[in-house]
Amino acid sequence: MAEKWIVGVDLGGTTTKLAFINLYGEIIHKWEIPTDNSDVGKNITINIAKAIDHKLEELGQEKTKLAGIGMGVPGPVNYATGIVYNAVNLGWEDNYPIKDLLEVETSLPSVIDNDANCAALGEMWKGAGNGAKDLVCVTLGTGVGGGVIANGNIVQGTTGAGGEIGHITSIPEGGAPCNCGKTGCLETVASATGIVRLAVEELSKGSSSGTLQELYSQTGQFTAKDVFDAARNGDETAGRVIDKVAFHLGLALANIGNTLNPEKIVIGGGVSKAGDVLLDKIRVKFEQFAFSRVKASTELALATLGNDAGVIGAAWLIKNNPAFIQ
Amino acid sequence: MAEKWIVGVDLGGTTTKLAFINLYGEIIHKWEIPTDNSDVGKNITINIAKAIDHKLEELGQEKTKLAGIGMGVPGPVNYATGIVYNAVNLGWEDNYPIKDLLEVETSLPSVIDNDANCAALGEMWKGAGNGAKDLVCVTLGTGVGGGVIANGNIVQGTTGAGGEIGHITSIPEGGAPCNCGKTGCLETVASATGIVRLAVEELSKGSSSGTLQELYSQTGQFTAKDVFDAARNGDETAGRVIDKVAFHLGLALANIGNTLNPEKIVIGGGVSKAGDVLLDKIRVKFEQFAFSRVKASTELALATLGNDAGVIGAAWLIKNNPAFIQ
Repeated sequence: MAEKWIVGVDLGGTTTKLAFINLYGEIIHKWEIPTDNSDVGKNITINIAKAIDHKLEELGQEKTKLAGIGMGVPGPVNYATGIVYNAVNLGWEDNYPIKDLLEVETSLPSVIDNDANCAALGEMWKGAGNGAKDLVCVTLGTGVGGGVIANGNIVQGTTGAGGEIGHITSIPEGGAPCNCGKTGCLETVASATGIVRLAVEELSKGSSSGTLQELYSQTGQFTAKDVFDAARNGDETAGRVIDKVAFHLGLALANIGNTLNPEKIVIGGGVSKAGDVLLDKIRVKFEQFAFSRVKASTELALATLGNDAGVIGAAWLIKNNPAFIQ
Repeated sequence: MAEKWIVGVDLGGTTTKLAFINLYGEIIHKWEIPTDNSDVGKNITINIAKAIDHKLEELGQEKTKLAGIGMGVPGPVNYATGIVYNAVNLGWEDNYPIKDLLEVETSLPSVIDNDANCAALGEMWKGAGNGAKDLVCVTLGTGVGGGVIANGNIVQGTTGAGGEIGHITSIPEGGAPCNCGKTGCLETVASATGIVRLAVEELSKGSSSGTLQELYSQTGQFTAKDVFDAARNGDETAGRVIDKVAFHLGLALANIGNTLNPEKIVIGGGVSKAGDVLLDKIRVKFEQFAFSRVKASTELALATLGNDAGVIGAAWLIKNNPAFIQ
């Protein structure tokens, strides 16, 4: 059994990441294929099955080498049945029985979870979590995702909406509209999109004269990374934006801390690449808003696995399941 | 084994509640003794041991009738070791090995948890939770306590501060001081004390002429119950206070819902006796601030066990432990 591999799959709207991973969480081989979401997404499982077979052939391995497939999908999941409640980016109909379809297509036992939950499991197993059994992972990307691990298990919630940290209401009155239909969600102020929106808002006040204003005047656009770069170079407008982002993240993460007292809160995703310029400011607000015992024991840390968190955490779904790994 | 009883103990700063409870969670006999916290609290375990022995004698039962003791204590607990980190109201020194001391004194196996966690377990087992394995319980009393159950287990957190819902920061800027040392905690606006404070604040604005103002002018004081009674009778000042309380509770519970998507959020404690006049207003705000899937699946409910929740949940600690109940 020790020489078996697990297939970790991180299914995204445009790209599907795959990896063969051993029982110690080491990536043996990883690669990507495009996600074909045409035709109500019916090619997705077929393409994954083909990709696995071709890669085995390329590596000169038999299918018996594989213990099973763990897969993260971008939508809420019924973990027990492997049904995806909805995943609009993939073309699938609601209540899509992805586990059954993947097993039929690949002849391999499969376990499905939400992609943000997989990222959290990956960081728990091999990343910043370093084995912590109580861990919250927040992913700051185009949107804001989250995964909550308590007592070593993902908190799925009663309909798979556990960990929807991006939809914590940060601005109860007068917040910006969120894709989810609410207003003032954490995602509207802490995602890459939200940070740019805040910066445009700040620049439109008209009194700014720094590098961010120059960039905006010249090109009519900028990215979240531009905001962090400008802040790092002393741009005051950008600094105020980062202060606002850090305030809302610090408050939300402190309140998650007050509720769960996890060993670690791990911050990942593209925005987290800003590093200490963001983390240090979040930490100040976190410490201000956290209950004393939480402040003393819940650690904020940057994610360490980058884009590999998803496939590694997906592999954990198989590794952790006694039905597959004896 | 089926005829065994469990001792459920709910240890408070002034009163200790005890009950003999069968394996089906039915209370056979319940009684109270005063808590003697003099002399660094060293009589507490002795008094519990004596109370159990006297009650067995009174009921004509042998000690072998008892499977063990579950006890809730007012402070953060290391669940694995049965050490109470601190419990100032009891006179105990920090890191008090209450489990070991209780076992020595009673010759019965013991399991210790925080009292708010026990109340949550009680409501899960026999109360409003009705068996829900994902449940959050918030207790609105003199303070605000909380217990979080995920996947059927209490979320203890890394140093026993899981469920400190009362110390969620509700008013990040300019909030009232909390006993915990922070400002603006949920407890400062949603506990009985907090509600009275908000009402005094509202009355001091000077423009009020309702029944609450009359009561305050005549007696110089009033209770949270008076505020609810006044609101029920159309007092506008009291109504505004309840709106404020409901806003902060609705927001905090929605954000807990967005993080955990529990099946139920159960509201208990003295303040919850206000019933629908409070719950209906909380629900409006909860639905405004909850993510759509959470709004559709996480139910708000009033606690049903009242003061018995603590002893029943404490008994669950033994019932749920395979070491004691085969």
